[in-house]
Amino acid sequence: MSERVAIVGSGLIGRAWAIVFARADREVTLFDSDPTQVDRALRVIESNLRDLETQGLIHSAAAVRARMGSAASLAAALDGARYVQESVPEDRALKHRVFAEMDALAAPETILGSSCSAIPGSRFLDLPGRARCLIAHPVSPPYLVPLVEVVPTPWTADETVTATQQLMAQVGQTPIVVHKEIDGFVLNRLQAAVINEAMYLIDEGVVTPDDLDKTMRDGLGLRWAFMGPFETMDLNSDQGFEGYTSQYGGSYQAMGAQLRVARPWSGAALARVNESRRARVPAERLSERQTWRDRRLMALLKHKAQAAQEIGS
Amino acid sequence: MSERVAIVGSGLIGRAWAIVFARADREVTLFDSDPTQVDRALRVIESNLRDLETQGLIHSAAAVRARMGSAASLAAALDGARYVQESVPEDRALKHRVFAEMDALAAPETILGSSCSAIPGSRFLDLPGRARCLIAHPVSPPYLVPLVEVVPTPWTADETVTATQQLMAQVGQTPIVVHKEIDGFVLNRLQAAVINEAMYLIDEGVVTPDDLDKTMRDGLGLRWAFMGPFETMDLNSDQGFEGYTSQYGGSYQAMGAQLRVARPWSGAALARVNESRRARVPAERLSERQTWRDRRLMALLKHKAQAAQEIGS
Repeated sequence: MSERVAIVGSGLIGRAWAIVFARADREVTLFDSDPTQVDRALRVIESNLRDLETQGLIHSAAAVRARMGSAASLAAALDGARYVQESVPEDRALKHRVFAEMDALAAPETILGSSCSAIPGSRFLDLPGRARCLIAHPVSPPYLVPLVEVVPTPWTADETVTATQQLMAQVGQTPIVVHKEIDGFVLNRLQAAVINEAMYLIDEGVVTPDDLDKTMRDGLGLRWAFMGPFETMDLNSDQGFEGYTSQYGGSYQAMGAQLRVARPWSGAALARVNESRRARVPAERLSERQTWRDRRLMALLKHKAQAAQEIGS
Repeated sequence: MSERVAIVGSGLIGRAWAIVFARADREVTLFDSDPTQVDRALRVIESNLRDLETQGLIHSAAAVRARMGSAASLAAALDGARYVQESVPEDRALKHRVFAEMDALAAPETILGSSCSAIPGSRFLDLPGRARCLIAHPVSPPYLVPLVEVVPTPWTADETVTATQQLMAQVGQTPIVVHKEIDGFVLNRLQAAVINEAMYLIDEGVVTPDDLDKTMRDGLGLRWAFMGPFETMDLNSDQGFEGYTSQYGGSYQAMGAQLRVARPWSGAALARVNESRRARVPAERLSERQTWRDRRLMALLKHKAQAAQEIGS
């Protein structure tokens, strides 16, 4: 298996993918229909790599950077690539056109993955080589958040799914498989469940936006950072998941009927959250706070790796 | 303000509260209608304190233990206590009886808090001293998970709410205020939103239980461990919360209508999760895994405190 990976589209997501593959010893070729974008992407990547090196998450920014290159044409980018990660804007017609071109150019064994987050794969992946096409949806930025949703279409070959899972695991990501085409896949459905109920609670004046955030970061989010909801339930009863659900299943289901995740967001609730956020972080300091978030994420990742080693995972 | 706190009911929650207050230099008196329970609780507490000392989360288990005592009667427990944390079983009639006794015995300025998680406070706190009664709902165990939901009834005085928030913050917890009596308060509603949608996704065969847990712990749960959902949204756009919601608000609301948080759990889905959990952790190793969870939680708390200091909070 060749170690070359091609990244098609060099915006926010494409350039983050380049870091994922190159830091895991893959040779990476970036392509963008606008060549100036690739130069810009490489400059941003160099700055990201310096941060990762400073935080001790990679040994050498220079070594990772040295594994990246660019291609002048899509054909050149795909030449010899074992895997392609498409990361062009979220537009069905555009993705369909790019995939049709890639499918015509790439060697038959090359897997074509899409970073698509919102369009069902079957709406743009019905191509002659559709068996080797699928969605590999990252969380932004994938070099800090390892989860990747691998979403086959009804035509994707099982081997394509398996090989993509293996590749993602090999480069240090956490692949999961989404077995049906469903809006929002898994991660964004769970996120929507929380956010929509949160908006309802704000709208009703049950809690302030700041207190809602505390509920997550000093409550629910602690265990969820290293266990999922099912393991959390399993360990909250001496009789495990079965004991937990026989004790609390009734009240969760009763509460389910009272949640208001389908209620439209009100302008008043949006204004209240926005006002609360701007009181915490003025607009002109948002980018500074984004840097804080990335440093905290990096520190958390280092902590998790260490804790897994010392305590177990 | 006296530093004495009384704990009424010395089961799982009561004894964990004792640790919270005693490690924050409060004198703690435990009371239980069954006196043998208090002795048992103190033995468990001693073991918990040794773990906390080993993990570096308290300086001296012995010093914390020395601030705890027991009382032979409810009257003796309440004598001189500035705050009382009721933690008897979740039974409306029982809680009502205990609160009526406490209200009759306690000095007028003493605040009476309940660990109640499921019964609206107005159903058992309508007493002569109802202005000084409220719910202070912890996450288990509160000495590892700082969030406390402070839930006034319609009769609770504002000063009672404020003083309880202050006390909780002083002893190192994170208090939030739940302004309306609503089933599940805030934390359990958000938890139910995730768990119920998760059960639906398992039932539909969209994802395996193991992959669902990974989605949280290697995806969503990372940022939620140090930011809430609103700050996460705020920092995911260069235009902040306003920019994020104008870009993605439509799709969250559309997804909301497709979530199935109100769907009853199927036996097949329950069996699938249970089977998956037991394949991961056999029943006879659950208690070992609970120890693992507590160690990971302690390590995460240490990490968060350090990261807050080094990077900011």
